[in-house]
Amino acid sequence: MRIMHTADWHIGKRLAGFDLAADQEAVFEELVKVAAREQVDAIIIAGDLYDRANPSEESVLQVNHMLKRLNRELHYPLLVVSGNHDSGVRLGSGREWFDATGLFMHTTLAEAFTPVVLGDTQFFLLPYFEPVAARLYFDDATLTNINKAMHRVSQTLQQQFDPAKKHVLVAHFFAAGSTHSESETLVNVGGLDAVAVSDLAAFDYVALGHLHNRHALNEAKVQYAGSLLKYSVSEAHQEKGVYILDTETMRRKFVSIKPLHDLQHLTGTFAGFADPAGFSAAERDAYTALTLKDDTVIPNVMATLRKIFPRLIGLDRERQVDLGEQPHANVKLAPTMLVAEFFHQVTGHEMSAEQLEWAKSALVKAKEED
Amino acid sequence: MRIMHTADWHIGKRLAGFDLAADQEAVFEELVKVAAREQVDAIIIAGDLYDRANPSEESVLQVNHMLKRLNRELHYPLLVVSGNHDSGVRLGSGREWFDATGLFMHTTLAEAFTPVVLGDTQFFLLPYFEPVAARLYFDDATLTNINKAMHRVSQTLQQQFDPAKKHVLVAHFFAAGSTHSESETLVNVGGLDAVAVSDLAAFDYVALGHLHNRHALNEAKVQYAGSLLKYSVSEAHQEKGVYILDTETMRRKFVSIKPLHDLQHLTGTFAGFADPAGFSAAERDAYTALTLKDDTVIPNVMATLRKIFPRLIGLDRERQVDLGEQPHANVKLAPTMLVAEFFHQVTGHEMSAEQLEWAKSALVKAKEED
Repeated sequence: MRIMHTADWHIGKRLAGFDLAADQEAVFEELVKVAAREQVDAIIIAGDLYDRANPSEESVLQVNHMLKRLNRELHYPLLVVSGNHDSGVRLGSGREWFDATGLFMHTTLAEAFTPVVLGDTQFFLLPYFEPVAARLYFDDATLTNINKAMHRVSQTLQQQFDPAKKHVLVAHFFAAGSTHSESETLVNVGGLDAVAVSDLAAFDYVALGHLHNRHALNEAKVQYAGSLLKYSVSEAHQEKGVYILDTETMRRKFVSIKPLHDLQHLTGTFAGFADPAGFSAAERDAYTALTLKDDTVIPNVMATLRKIFPRLIGLDRERQVDLGEQPHANVKLAPTMLVAEFFHQVTGHEMSAEQLEWAKSALVKAKEED
Repeated sequence: MRIMHTADWHIGKRLAGFDLAADQEAVFEELVKVAAREQVDAIIIAGDLYDRANPSEESVLQVNHMLKRLNRELHYPLLVVSGNHDSGVRLGSGREWFDATGLFMHTTLAEAFTPVVLGDTQFFLLPYFEPVAARLYFDDATLTNINKAMHRVSQTLQQQFDPAKKHVLVAHFFAAGSTHSESETLVNVGGLDAVAVSDLAAFDYVALGHLHNRHALNEAKVQYAGSLLKYSVSEAHQEKGVYILDTETMRRKFVSIKPLHDLQHLTGTFAGFADPAGFSAAERDAYTALTLKDDTVIPNVMATLRKIFPRLIGLDRERQVDLGEQPHANVKLAPTMLVAEFFHQVTGHEMSAEQLEWAKSALVKAKEED
């Protein structure tokens, strides 16, 4: 069998205020094309379908549409687990009806122990779970962290192994050895809160979600799919796409998927960025974080750069302006100009005459109090 | 066929702060027994399964459990529409999978025009909709109110009529001639915002949800199911239960369902209410609104009455104490006692010594300012 492995869709996620729904929809349609071209037999979605536990109606409609398209229209069996960003309850609403058409969605720990059998393979769908869920399920107070809990879960899953079949684990957690990017919620990262890869050795393959970097872990049979899109500046250089797993050989290959708009992080001078001729249409259309090499105050910096890069998601300076210990060109500027520049950086708007007046009188007052 | 007709479950509703989940679960289990005893072939749920558009996870679990029990475990075909309290999007999450096991759930106007055929009957499942939805669906700007919209909807539904079948409409709206109770959200009630019963004449039967009083409408073939429980003091004297419709004769009968705790509204004296011997265990257990005939100040009134009626949901006086125009025994009392009584009525707690001290000093200050 040929299985597509994707994860971390994060439907509903916004990037610096930008709604990503259209980008997600576009990359999803590309994913559909890959599934057809690669003639996959089933699709794994390894958690974080939603970006938050209580998604908006628009996000619910979008995920429903995606699942419906893959399962009801295109008839792919789907192997889905909930991630830490999903509410298992809300995502799993209706899941008792899903099995009938081959949409297998597990959102509670208990469900993981009943494998889904497709062709030559047993799939164990283990949703994201907290150690307390394992303590309750096993009635074992010693399962105080995810590593201990997963050890027990893994042992129990192996009891369900059919020796005549291959065994694939679909899960959503932080596996030891992997590294993080900014767009994951960093809660309890550390040795005790990571799953030891050794506890996964019994499986022929482990298809993971959680970390957005597909290279986060370098293991022969344990693989993060990576996120659907670049969801933070730290992911700017990561290639996004899906894996295609062959269950006969347990070999996978990566198929990259081009987004509607890329996400880039550029470093340069304001003069360079402010020249539209220096960038292609695609570069100007990308979600863009800029790092300025300049040290001088630049009036209207956000407003000017937004004209060149309408999807500007971040702006900083290569050298931090530190007014305290290291004297700097900027300190020679009038304080109102510094305030005006700061206002720009934060809001992207110019200060109005009235606001400038307020700033001036506040500075006068502050000086008096000195 | 024998069809059970229920509506207005309002899962998630609280009554004066009391969580009704256990009461709803208990009455649901009674409903399950009625379905078995009456050997029904299918069950209509005519909207407002939830009390609010964005229900809690607990409510989602409860509704999912109920639908799963009726449809997946007991194998009743379900005919469901969304009501004005439901989010069609959230309730309908997964609905593309539901049909496979005979759970027919319509949450958009467009779906109403495809009848569900069971045995001898075409069921038209019309969810709650706003006039704007009809204007968009029919591309007809003249549909400015629900009456006009429903006229057009009804005409269009009739075009789908199979003459060899009976025709039952399942819907959720305010039909003309019906009266209201306090627990419905009263938005836009009036002639133009009610559906004329005459527009429903083409149907052999109309199974409605929305109004909580099953006697709200007196029509031979148009029936409100009434709510699952008494959800307001104004419903204290209403009998709750379900209808059983025979599609051969189009006759219905009502089967009452006893709740775990009744809801009662009692009028009497404080002395009478404060005597536990005057009430049965069931009466003391009921959700209780009390109207006091007394005119005097009663210290600790809420605290005392809550000991007798732990599910006290309301307390008022038969004669309103008006300190302004009509001089009254109370005004002769010390102002601090009036404050203390008011505090009781509002909070159900006694004022602490510290609070009493605050009230006294505030009154002294107010007098000084006079």
